[in-house]
Amino acid sequence: MRPSGRKLDELRPVSIEIDVMKHAEGSCLIRMGETHVLCSATVEDKPPPFLKNTGLGWVTAEYGMLPRATNSRTRREAAAGKQSGRTQEIQRLIGRALRAGVDRSALGERQIVIDCDVIQADGGTRCASITGGWVALRLAVNRLMKAGIIVSDPILDHVAAVSCGVYAGQPVLDLDYAEDSTAGTDGNFIMTGAGRLIEVQMSAEGATFSRAEMGRLLDLAEAGNTMLVAAQKAALG
Amino acid sequence: MRPSGRKLDELRPVSIEIDVMKHAEGSCLIRMGETHVLCSATVEDKPPPFLKNTGLGWVTAEYGMLPRATNSRTRREAAAGKQSGRTQEIQRLIGRALRAGVDRSALGERQIVIDCDVIQADGGTRCASITGGWVALRLAVNRLMKAGIIVSDPILDHVAAVSCGVYAGQPVLDLDYAEDSTAGTDGNFIMTGAGRLIEVQMSAEGATFSRAEMGRLLDLAEAGNTMLVAAQKAALG
Amino acid sequence: MRPSGRKLDELRPVSIEIDVMKHAEGSCLIRMGETHVLCSATVEDKPPPFLKNTGLGWVTAEYGMLPRATNSRTRREAAAGKQSGRTQEIQRLIGRALRAGVDRSALGERQIVIDCDVIQADGGTRCASITGGWVALRLAVNRLMKAGIIVSDPILDHVAAVSCGVYAGQPVLDLDYAEDSTAGTDGNFIMTGAGRLIEVQMSAEGATFSRAEMGRLLDLAEAGNTMLVAAQKAALG
Amino acid sequence: MRPSGRKLDELRPVSIEIDVMKHAEGSCLIRMGETHVLCSATVEDKPPPFLKNTGLGWVTAEYGMLPRATNSRTRREAAAGKQSGRTQEIQRLIGRALRAGVDRSALGERQIVIDCDVIQADGGTRCASITGGWVALRLAVNRLMKAGIIVSDPILDHVAAVSCGVYAGQPVLDLDYAEDSTAGTDGNFIMTGAGRLIEVQMSAEGATFSRAEMGRLLDLAEAGNTMLVAAQKAALG
Amino acid sequence: MRPSGRKLDELRPVSIEIDVMKHAEGSCLIRMGETHVLCSATVEDKPPPFLKNTGLGWVTAEYGMLPRATNSRTRREAAAGKQSGRTQEIQRLIGRALRAGVDRSALGERQIVIDCDVIQADGGTRCASITGGWVALRLAVNRLMKAGIIVSDPILDHVAAVSCGVYAGQPVLDLDYAEDSTAGTDGNFIMTGAGRLIEVQMSAEGATFSRAEMGRLLDLAEAGNTMLVAAQKAALG
Amino acid sequence: MRPSGRKLDELRPVSIEIDVMKHAEGSCLIRMGETHVLCSATVEDKPPPFLKNTGLGWVTAEYGMLPRATNSRTRREAAAGKQSGRTQEIQRLIGRALRAGVDRSALGERQIVIDCDVIQADGGTRCASITGGWVALRLAVNRLMKAGIIVSDPILDHVAAVSCGVYAGQPVLDLDYAEDSTAGTDGNFIMTGAGRLIEVQMSAEGATFSRAEMGRLLDLAEAGNTMLVAAQKAALG
Repeated sequence: MRPSGRKLDELRPVSIEIDVMKHAEGSCLIRMGETHVLCSATVEDKPPPFLKNTGLGWVTAEYGMLPRATNSRTRREAAAGKQSGRTQEIQRLIGRALRAGVDRSALGERQIVIDCDVIQADGGTRCASITGGWVALRLAVNRLMKAGIIVSDPILDHVAAVSCGVYAGQPVLDLDYAEDSTAGTDGNFIMTGAGRLIEVQMSAEGATFSRAEMGRLLDLAEAGNTMLVAAQKAALG
Repeated sequence: MRPSGRKLDELRPVSIEIDVMKHAEGSCLIRMGETHVLCSATVEDKPPPFLKNTGLGWVTAEYGMLPRATNSRTRREAAAGKQSGRTQEIQRLIGRALRAGVDRSALGERQIVIDCDVIQADGGTRCASITGGWVALRLAVNRLMKAGIIVSDPILDHVAAVSCGVYAGQPVLDLDYAEDSTAGTDGNFIMTGAGRLIEVQMSAEGATFSRAEMGRLLDLAEAGNTMLVAAQKAALG
Repeated sequence: MRPSGRKLDELRPVSIEIDVMKHAEGSCLIRMGETHVLCSATVEDKPPPFLKNTGLGWVTAEYGMLPRATNSRTRREAAAGKQSGRTQEIQRLIGRALRAGVDRSALGERQIVIDCDVIQADGGTRCASITGGWVALRLAVNRLMKAGIIVSDPILDHVAAVSCGVYAGQPVLDLDYAEDSTAGTDGNFIMTGAGRLIEVQMSAEGATFSRAEMGRLLDLAEAGNTMLVAAQKAALG
Repeated sequence: MRPSGRKLDELRPVSIEIDVMKHAEGSCLIRMGETHVLCSATVEDKPPPFLKNTGLGWVTAEYGMLPRATNSRTRREAAAGKQSGRTQEIQRLIGRALRAGVDRSALGERQIVIDCDVIQADGGTRCASITGGWVALRLAVNRLMKAGIIVSDPILDHVAAVSCGVYAGQPVLDLDYAEDSTAGTDGNFIMTGAGRLIEVQMSAEGATFSRAEMGRLLDLAEAGNTMLVAAQKAALG
Repeated sequence: MRPSGRKLDELRPVSIEIDVMKHAEGSCLIRMGETHVLCSATVEDKPPPFLKNTGLGWVTAEYGMLPRATNSRTRREAAAGKQSGRTQEIQRLIGRALRAGVDRSALGERQIVIDCDVIQADGGTRCASITGGWVALRLAVNRLMKAGIIVSDPILDHVAAVSCGVYAGQPVLDLDYAEDSTAGTDGNFIMTGAGRLIEVQMSAEGATFSRAEMGRLLDLAEAGNTMLVAAQKAALG
Repeated sequence: MRPSGRKLDELRPVSIEIDVMKHAEGSCLIRMGETHVLCSATVEDKPPPFLKNTGLGWVTAEYGMLPRATNSRTRREAAAGKQSGRTQEIQRLIGRALRAGVDRSALGERQIVIDCDVIQADGGTRCASITGGWVALRLAVNRLMKAGIIVSDPILDHVAAVSCGVYAGQPVLDLDYAEDSTAGTDGNFIMTGAGRLIEVQMSAEGATFSRAEMGRLLDLAEAGNTMLVAAQKAALG
């Protein structure tokens, strides 16, 4: 029934390749089927100005998309002179999600910037950015700890994200572009490794929904995120 | 227990005053306690370019805040030269929410722009904008129908929104600023008059949450939105 | 003869409601007929950089207009990405006018920002902004003096403004939009409570003018400003 | 008494050199003492969009200043990414002033753009731009008439401008920078060749003023503008 | 003597992997040692406006760099709100170089946009972009010809580019970052498959140079470009 | 054969008038035929931030063009809100060229900004800017040395620039606009007084070129730059 032939509760093939960028403190290339996102973590010695002298650190994210990551070319935001509302919304979400898994006091007065650049898009780029961004963050923190710069691990738990939606009347896991562009209801679910919720964003793109439908999507999301956390663990060895 | 002395499931005093702007096709001033938002609807003869020759209309929204709507002055976005990510995120949300309650085919090839300008802010400005914006939209559509420009009512149902969150360990309805700024979990719930969900946005600002907690917030939101829909009806007479 | 039926030397009904904004140090809503402007004063502890260590303070102003304050919707400047030349010209004028009534040495090294936001426009918004902005300024200074932060009153005199013009061949006071849009000559006159001139801006919109005509407009403006100063006094009690 | 040793009612040496730019339809270099402005007129076949099919033409102006026209270097506006409020205010004034001397119906559906670029600044650049800009406009219109493109002369009269102010307690004509930067009251006076007023802008920079003082400045301005119109005539031969 | 241990006339290992982007009409990932650039070609049905009704086509290029392609993180240009002068200079160069190898009349009224995004930077990104960009262009044109949209091949010859410079007193081929950042003289050489010159840009970064030195760098560049053209051929099969 | 009737190796008439701007530390107006560029040098007490505490100074350049310097009016970059890619490329080139002739250690921790504003354009504006910009720089440095602020002369040699190209099949020196707009190959050659090369930029605008052609253009450029250096010397007395 799904365009890809997947089962209702089947993720796309997940692949997370780590240490793909020579210069970054942490990096990975995450592939969710045909959606490919390059994630890097940069450690900065100083926190943002509003955290000076608070003892707290910060994790923030930026999101971009290569112009031809999409089916028809998207105008380059640098040439347009600004980031779109969509881009800003996504990068605020990624940053918020990752911070929910970090003890900012243990991180100390520094900032980690997660860059998520979509090399190829086929739906679910924001979720892939969160799942991959967390791996880059984990690698950068490992390096800080190995170097003795941070003593106590500031990472509280895994953070992973998956989308679910109602496609052709059925709740399905991990929408690809063909599904996403026609789904009635659609949601992004961000969870910890322990299964706690970090962020739920459900939206009636074409049809309003009931609490019961919401429950079924949450069921799918819980299963999906469990598999994604396992993929993160496998990638990190 | 709440800073305002309200009960856990008590809305702030709601007031919706209609026809407050001489020039707009529809307008209202909505007050949720000390949060005041001026909402206006502008009818434009043409739809946005991407809908030309589709027979479909569009509803969009813009959001702004007077510099001194807030406790300390916020820099004017026009002077800063761009709308913040937060502003863009909010106005995208308002437009999406209102469109979910509109039959765009019955609306026909025209656009209605909803402007939501926060005159005074005390938490919950995006929800008040949606609830008030819907009233402005309803009034503008009434005018189009009275003038015979639209024959079949494009408005499918009421749209209202309320925030809920976990404050001091308790689920509470309709957060004001004092609560919002310290809430652990926090969500916006947009619903129709019939009680269907349009958008759910829950976020772990300080603490992750369980499905059970999510359920309790949804219970509160359903009750709150029922009261807001009643207030919309009362305001429209 | 005037579209509104007013006499040649008759102001529109003036109303100045004070303390309308919960958060501001001073605020008022001024209504000149159907022109409504919300004015607020924000006290900042520091002067602008160019006044550091001079012992002098500063008063500045920003001006905005809600998109649907006007008959047809005006594009939001924040969305356009810049303030128009007209907006900048007006806010420079408001700031200059208010500074002319202030002893910046008595004010000390701080800045007061006057925000004038037009809620509804029917001509004469810049003059209403000055007259109302002064009230907001006065209230903010009262608060500073009451708190003992300023000892000697830095406000030298009232500042009020009114427009006059030649409409249908006759000099008239306080142009509304219907008059303003067809007036031949048109001017803004800013004066102190003592009747001294602060700024005179006369412009031949459609017809050049003589010194005699200029004199007649000044006569009207003097009478009008006297009434506006009385309205300021009444509003402040 | 004046820093330059000039008499109270004495203009700086005026020089207007015409046809200084190879490519422009009309051009001049105007020198008011050490203030030098290069003015050019460009004829465009089409009017601005808002005048399409009205039979009316338009005259507009743009103003700029070389970075080192001033005593200390001013940041290049192109590098800053926008024109300052001051620049916009000045170019709006120049355009408005020149249009007051033009029969836009006789001009027909075309636009003339006047560029005024300050090569060297010593006070009074906006007035010099108007006086020189008019000469460039006159030359461009002459060319249009000579080519038979325009039949009836759209130029109604000369337009010239001069500043006056109260310096060291005395009303003086044609302020240079040394005077302008310390003047109490200060005004720009734009007039036609016949002595009618086009625009009067007086401002209490440091001291409010009376109608009597205003009158004395107007007397000076009338005399000054008469001399400037004579200089325009001499330059045009 | 070279930091990498390469011989003076030795290129870095070159790898060109084609068809790496699912959506693009042509694409490749070019690796010159640790410099990796993703190149895609997008075919647009319409030429840029200035070529309408000329029968001629256009090839243009855009260049970008992931923030963490570099050793320390570079600010994202989309966030900065504009492309840097360096970026614009490079993308103008790439477009100019590729157009020199195209018969724009045979291409017809369409545009091919080459996007070159640096995934990892280690010197020589603009040369790699040209060499890889040409491969993406070739693939997109192949597709147009296969589909019968273009009949006569518009590609006149290969285009490849390499940098050479004087490092530690010796002329060396294909500078990497360690060499580039300390090179005295430095140049980019763009050539056709037949060995004709398209663009030569030599610059005295630290030391001026003689014609003889220029000749020695040209000798190296000719050899290097011959190898790069061979690599292009090998990649295309 | 050349549109101007010049011989193949003949420069346009060169004129360099010094000290033309009252406020600048150094200035000249350079005329290469109908191309006129006003060059000024501004000395700033502080180096750019990246050179703080290095003991090194900096020379930078900005380039602009009056809107009607060109045959048809060019949009004002300040009004467009940004400098074009062409402008940025040119000003980067000017700065790089002039720095190649300066001992930045002898200059010390200060910055000299060279502004090159094209008053009239007829081809070759970037070369004229370099040749004239060097004169402005020389004059500003002379003043610093005379004032004892700099002891050892930081200027190593003259810097001059000229364009050459293949026009109608013949190598010609110092292209004017008529030649430049149709030239097949085209280059800019920047040299020192001693005849060393600083920058060579050759581009196949319409036709690729051989090393032999490149050599012939270099011959012309060497002769041309020798004459330009002589003109610089003559202008400086």
